[in-house]
Amino acid sequence: MHKPNILVSNDDGIDAPGLQKLVQELKNFANVYVSAPYRQQSAVGHSITIFYPLRAEKYYKDGKLFGIAVEGTPADAVKIGALWFYKDVKFDLVVSGINHGANTAINIIYSGTVSAATEGRILGIPSIAISLTTFEPNDFSDASKISAKLIQQIFEKAKDRLTSSTLLNINIPAVPLSEIKGVKITKQGKSYWEDSFEVRADPNGRDYYWLTGKMVITDETNDNDIIAIKDNYVSITPLHYNLTDYNTYEKFKDTKFEI
Amino acid sequence: MHKPNILVSNDDGIDAPGLQKLVQELKNFANVYVSAPYRQQSAVGHSITIFYPLRAEKYYKDGKLFGIAVEGTPADAVKIGALWFYKDVKFDLVVSGINHGANTAINIIYSGTVSAATEGRILGIPSIAISLTTFEPNDFSDASKISAKLIQQIFEKAKDRLTSSTLLNINIPAVPLSEIKGVKITKQGKSYWEDSFEVRADPNGRDYYWLTGKMVITDETNDNDIIAIKDNYVSITPLHYNLTDYNTYEKFKDTKFEI
Repeated sequence: MHKPNILVSNDDGIDAPGLQKLVQELKNFANVYVSAPYRQQSAVGHSITIFYPLRAEKYYKDGKLFGIAVEGTPADAVKIGALWFYKDVKFDLVVSGINHGANTAINIIYSGTVSAATEGRILGIPSIAISLTTFEPNDFSDASKISAKLIQQIFEKAKDRLTSSTLLNINIPAVPLSEIKGVKITKQGKSYWEDSFEVRADPNGRDYYWLTGKMVITDETNDNDIIAIKDNYVSITPLHYNLTDYNTYEKFKDTKFEI
Repeated sequence: MHKPNILVSNDDGIDAPGLQKLVQELKNFANVYVSAPYRQQSAVGHSITIFYPLRAEKYYKDGKLFGIAVEGTPADAVKIGALWFYKDVKFDLVVSGINHGANTAINIIYSGTVSAATEGRILGIPSIAISLTTFEPNDFSDASKISAKLIQQIFEKAKDRLTSSTLLNINIPAVPLSEIKGVKITKQGKSYWEDSFEVRADPNGRDYYWLTGKMVITDETNDNDIIAIKDNYVSITPLHYNLTDYNTYEKFKDTKFEI
């Protein structure tokens, strides 16, 4: 096949090591184009900028053009990359990541990393979000090698299953390479956050509120993302954004409402 | 039944007429608590604030306490309202709206209005997002009356179908009351935006980029939100946030990936 064209974005910012190392690995077999937020944009969900214009600039690394840095959200960066700066490129794939921190279970819906990939999918390009499941410092060497190898295999072994509606969410366990047991195709877990707020007073005596909480693991079977990671498997969850709840639709469909 | 406890939020801000009029109508039959963003937060998707603390203040209207104004996103406002400011209230419903502008088809995934309702659902409270499908000025009188009447009917006629996993997305057509044909239970439409960017130069000659585009209506059947609205029906779409794409899961599940 031809050398694939890959658009890379993220939510940790264009200078994040997770993106930089990934780009380095992908360049071994692909034409790589980068359009990513200028600054970290975590937990932005699927935001886009509509009331303000976007700023975007060429971003240089070691004196060479590296990509486009966008003053906006991950979804903004993918949109303006695909539709404006690289509009003459026919992209085979959008890759968002590698995120520093897991995007499994309920976290997926808050994820800027996943939203960049979702935006690629909305634009009709097969898209992949990749996260490394730790907040500890990490050089992303292993994770970027694993990512590049998986992407190559997706092009080779699963080319026929790769369509304009493919959206994959990959999580890589943050353990030494030798301890990773393999790859599982998974579902989104049902585990959730038990949130609370911690209240503090500022030096002027006014309250401010920190969101805090702990993840409640309700999943048990190993066919979901959060347990696969716990068991040291790379997790690949196919996602969609068809938000219709068909069960509730069936339950409500014959209710006669008056206005 | 007891007088229901309703938490109201939105993404247009606590002083938006869509929320103010809705609260006024809901007070006729419910205990209403308001926790909403201080400022307009449209197209924020499902963002939450985790790297900064939240500020939140009591908001007064006509000299009376009206609710809590949160310097954060719609999801933040619902979280801090339910878990902190009104933590002793057992909520029967979260209502987000009335939004000024449609939240149908692909727009749902960018919607701050829907995200506030989704956050209610995540907290285990039945939740409803409501939008009026126009950007033209509107006093929200008809829309808030329709909304209150629908919510009352949901409590009465559909109480058995209202569970902690109920999440409904209501869109109200922006036509005179007499022209509304009825209520349809619908699915999320497949229509999408054909986006582009318009480039302008600032007074210093530096480029900035406006997102622009037009909605491409690909839906035709009247069982989806966008066509129901076009036909002057109130649309009620049950939503979920199970993002697993089971079809693609089946296609990929037996692929042997190596790491």
